[in-house]
Amino acid sequence: MAKSTQSAIEEMVEVLAAQEYPEWTLQQRLAVACRILADNGHGSGLAGQFTARGEEPGTMWTLPYGMGFAEVKASDYLLVDDDLNVLDGNGTPNMANRFHLHVYKAREDAQSLVHTHPPYSSALSMIGEPLHVSHMDTAMFYDDVAYLPKWPGVPFGDEEGEIISEAIGDKNAILLAHHGQMCAAPTVEAACVMAIFFEHAARIQLLAMGAGQIKDIEPGLGKEAHDWRHAPEAMAVTFHYFARAALEKHSAVILD
Amino acid sequence: MAKSTQSAIEEMVEVLAAQEYPEWTLQQRLAVACRILADNGHGSGLAGQFTARGEEPGTMWTLPYGMGFAEVKASDYLLVDDDLNVLDGNGTPNMANRFHLHVYKAREDAQSLVHTHPPYSSALSMIGEPLHVSHMDTAMFYDDVAYLPKWPGVPFGDEEGEIISEAIGDKNAILLAHHGQMCAAPTVEAACVMAIFFEHAARIQLLAMGAGQIKDIEPGLGKEAHDWRHAPEAMAVTFHYFARAALEKHSAVILD
Amino acid sequence: MAKSTQSAIEEMVEVLAAQEYPEWTLQQRLAVACRILADNGHGSGLAGQFTARGEEPGTMWTLPYGMGFAEVKASDYLLVDDDLNVLDGNGTPNMANRFHLHVYKAREDAQSLVHTHPPYSSALSMIGEPLHVSHMDTAMFYDDVAYLPKWPGVPFGDEEGEIISEAIGDKNAILLAHHGQMCAAPTVEAACVMAIFFEHAARIQLLAMGAGQIKDIEPGLGKEAHDWRHAPEAMAVTFHYFARAALEKHSAVILD
Amino acid sequence: MAKSTQSAIEEMVEVLAAQEYPEWTLQQRLAVACRILADNGHGSGLAGQFTARGEEPGTMWTLPYGMGFAEVKASDYLLVDDDLNVLDGNGTPNMANRFHLHVYKAREDAQSLVHTHPPYSSALSMIGEPLHVSHMDTAMFYDDVAYLPKWPGVPFGDEEGEIISEAIGDKNAILLAHHGQMCAAPTVEAACVMAIFFEHAARIQLLAMGAGQIKDIEPGLGKEAHDWRHAPEAMAVTFHYFARAALEKHSAVILD
Repeated sequence: MAKSTQSAIEEMVEVLAAQEYPEWTLQQRLAVACRILADNGHGSGLAGQFTARGEEPGTMWTLPYGMGFAEVKASDYLLVDDDLNVLDGNGTPNMANRFHLHVYKAREDAQSLVHTHPPYSSALSMIGEPLHVSHMDTAMFYDDVAYLPKWPGVPFGDEEGEIISEAIGDKNAILLAHHGQMCAAPTVEAACVMAIFFEHAARIQLLAMGAGQIKDIEPGLGKEAHDWRHAPEAMAVTFHYFARAALEKHSAVILD
Repeated sequence: MAKSTQSAIEEMVEVLAAQEYPEWTLQQRLAVACRILADNGHGSGLAGQFTARGEEPGTMWTLPYGMGFAEVKASDYLLVDDDLNVLDGNGTPNMANRFHLHVYKAREDAQSLVHTHPPYSSALSMIGEPLHVSHMDTAMFYDDVAYLPKWPGVPFGDEEGEIISEAIGDKNAILLAHHGQMCAAPTVEAACVMAIFFEHAARIQLLAMGAGQIKDIEPGLGKEAHDWRHAPEAMAVTFHYFARAALEKHSAVILD
Repeated sequence: MAKSTQSAIEEMVEVLAAQEYPEWTLQQRLAVACRILADNGHGSGLAGQFTARGEEPGTMWTLPYGMGFAEVKASDYLLVDDDLNVLDGNGTPNMANRFHLHVYKAREDAQSLVHTHPPYSSALSMIGEPLHVSHMDTAMFYDDVAYLPKWPGVPFGDEEGEIISEAIGDKNAILLAHHGQMCAAPTVEAACVMAIFFEHAARIQLLAMGAGQIKDIEPGLGKEAHDWRHAPEAMAVTFHYFARAALEKHSAVILD
Repeated sequence: MAKSTQSAIEEMVEVLAAQEYPEWTLQQRLAVACRILADNGHGSGLAGQFTARGEEPGTMWTLPYGMGFAEVKASDYLLVDDDLNVLDGNGTPNMANRFHLHVYKAREDAQSLVHTHPPYSSALSMIGEPLHVSHMDTAMFYDDVAYLPKWPGVPFGDEEGEIISEAIGDKNAILLAHHGQMCAAPTVEAACVMAIFFEHAARIQLLAMGAGQIKDIEPGLGKEAHDWRHAPEAMAVTFHYFARAALEKHSAVILD
C-alpha cells in the first residue's frame, strides 16, 4: 500500500514520541545545549547566550559573564529578574542578555532563546542578504526567519531589546545584520537544534552563492518540511543525538 | 619495457586481489562504514542512511531512527521487509529509508545504498548545477552520476521513492536538488568510498567554481579512470584504509 | 527603568573589573597566548612572533628561532636588547623579530606585539584590499587598522622595521600585503585577543566578499563597539576564556 | 648599526646551521614526513606517494600499495628497482609510483619526490590556472613551479612518467591539471615542507580569487624570499617543528 508523505510523517512522530531520553533538569538541558554549540563552532570568544524562561513571570535563566559555551555546567546557570538582578546562583549576568528579556515579554510562546555569532552567520550578516532557505535540512526556517537589516549597536541597552523583539515579530528566528542570529523556541532542545541548523543554513548559503545562483524550493513542500522539522519529537531526537556526542566528549561533568 | 596504463591497471588489480582484510559480517561492514562517514563530515543531524539488501527478496538492513552515524554498532542494524516492518533487531526504522526500498527494487545490481546530506553536496544541490566531474580522484562519477533537479519534498512517502529510482536510472550515483546525494553500489565497501568521494567532488567543484571556470577532462581518459576506480579491489583497499582509521579512533566497539 | 547602551557598558566594565584571574608572570602570559594562537589556526610553519616589551628600555621578550607557537613554554622566552643580543635565556632569537624593535620604539603605548600569517589574513593580503570591518565582533579594528599595500620583502632587515612602524602609525593593527597581520596592544592579553579577531575578521570578510557586497556599519556605533571591545576588562575576560581552554588542552606545562 | 635583509639572512642561516635534530634514517624521515602530510590534510584516500632515491642507481624507496600516509612506519618502506621490483622489504609498490622513476632519471638533483592530491590543490587543478605565488610564505614556489595543463590520465604507465618529467623541467614543483601537485627536493625534509606549502599556496589562492584579484609581488623580492625559503637550514627547521607535532600526536611508533 502506497504511503503518502503526510501519513508517513504522522507515523514517524508517533514512533518518536515513544523514544526515551535522560530526565534532565532545565539547567542540565541548557548546559548540554551550550556544550553542543561550542562543539559545533558557535563560539566567537564569549559572544552568545543561551537562556530559558523562569517559572516566575519576568524571570530568566542565564549565565554569568565571563563563561563561554565550552565550559558551562548546569550549576553555573543563574536565575535573574527582569532587570538582570540575580535571584538564584552566583555571578553577574552578561548585560548582553538584556535584549532576551524584551523578547520573552513580546513572545509568550518562547520558552528558550539562543543567540550566537558563529562565523558563517556572521559573514552572511555583513552583506545585506536575508537567510535564503533552499534545503530540506534547513526548512525549519522556511518562511520563518526574520531579518534586521540595520545594526543598532552593542546590544546592552533596552533600545536594542525593543528593536530586536519588534524585528523578529512572530517568526521563530532572525538574522541580525552585522551581528549574528537568534532563535526562539518552545523548548531548550528545539532552540539548540535551531541554532545548529541556522549556522548550517548560513554556511551552505554562502558556499552556494560563491559558486552560483540559489534556486527556490516549492512553497508547499517547504512548508511541509518546516512543520515536520518543528515537531517537538523531531527536535528532541536530534537534540539527544548531539547530546550523546557532547557527553561522550566532555563527560557527565556538564550535568553537575 | 614501457608499460601502458591499461596493462599497469590490470597488474594493479591482480596485486590488490591478493590483499587480506578482516572477515567482517555485513552488519559489521555497515557499522564501520557509518563511522567512516561520521568521521568525514557526513552528518547533518540525523539525516542520512546506510543500508544493504537483505538475503530474502524485498528485505533490507537499516538503522533504527534516532541513531546517528557517529554511534552505530554492528548490532544496531535491523532487518526490515518491504514495508519497513522489523524482521530482526530492536527499534523502529527511519521512514526516510522508504525510498531505498524502491531503489533496490529498480536496481538489481545494487547491494548497498548510501544517502547523506553533507555540507558541500548540500550547498551544490541548491544552485541547479549537476555534479561536474573534472578530477582523477572523483572519476568514479565520470558520466556516472544522475541529477534530480526538482525536490519532491520530505522523502518519507512512496512517491519520492519512485521519483528517485527513476531519476537515478542506471547510474551509480545521483545528486538530489535541495537535498543531498545517493550512491548505489555492489558492496558496502564501494558505497562507503563513493559517498566519501561524492562529497569530496562537491567540495572541490564549489571551490573551483568560486575561483574560476571548471575545465573538462578528456572523455576516454575519464572513462578509463572511472573503470579503474570502480574495480572492486580498488574500492576495497580504500575502504579498509578508512576502516583502520575509524577503528583506531573509536575502538573495536563498532564491531559489536 | 530603561538602560542606555553607554550606561550598560559602564556597568559591565565595573562588573568585569571584579573578576579574578590566575596571577601569571609576563612570560607565562606570553606562553599561554602563543598556545591560544596555535589552537586557533595561527600557524604557518614557524612564521609569526609574539613579543612583549622588557622592563629596561630597548629590551624585548621573544622566542628562540625554531620554536613554533604550538610548543612554547614560559621558560622559553628570551630577553633581548635592541640588536637582538640575548640578555636572559637560552637560544637565538628569530631575525624576523627585528621589526618589532622598530615598532616598540615608535609606539610607546605598545607593550606587546603579535604578528602572524594565518590563512585568511594571508589570502586577504594578496588582493590589494584593506581589512573591511563590518561586524560587531571585529569592531576592535573599526577605523583602527592600517594597511601596507606594498610588500617590502623578507622582514629581517632594519628597513622593513622602519616601513612597518611608519605604516601602522597610531593604529592598533595593520594588514601587511603579501604577508600577514600585526597587532600592537597595551597588554599581552589584548594582543592575543586582537590577533584571534583579526584572523576572524579576515575570514568573515573573505566569506562575505565571495557571496556579495559588504555593507558598512554606522560610524558612531562602530566607534562605540570599538571602545567597548578595547576596554582592558573586556580584553582580559576574553583572553582568560581562551586561556582556560588552552590549559585544559595542553596541561599546565605551558606555565613552566 | 642598520642591518640589511641579505646580511640578516646570512646570519640566520648560520644560526640555524647550529641547530641539533634527531638522527633519523632515511626511512624514518620518510615515515615522519608521511605522517606530517596526513596531519595536514594531504590525504585523498590512498592517493599520493612520498619517495626517496635509493643509494644504488635506478632504485627508489617507496610504500606498498594499500597503505595511507596516516599509518606509515619507517619499516614499511620498500626499496624498488627501476621497474618497481622489490629489492628490500615486504609488499607490492603502488604502480602510481612509476612516474617517480622517470622524474628521478630526468632530475639528478632530486633526492626525494612527493606527490599528493589534497583538496585545494585538486580544486585549483580543475580551472586551468597555474599556481599564482603572491605571498611571502609560499615564495619557495616563486618562479619555480611548472604547470601541466593537460591531464594524461591515470598515471600508472610509462607515458605519463615521460610527460610529467618533461613538464616539470628544471622547476622544483608542478601543478598537474585535474590531478594534484608534485614537489622535487634535495632532501626528504624539503620535499615535505614544500608539499605542505604547495597546498597552503593553493588554498590562499582560491580564497583570494573567490574574493578579488590577486596582486603580484615584486620579482626581485620574490626571488630573495624564494632563495631564503630554499636554504636547507630553513627547510630543516620547519620540518622538525612539524615532526615534533607529529611525534607528539602519534608517538614514536612512526620511527619503528
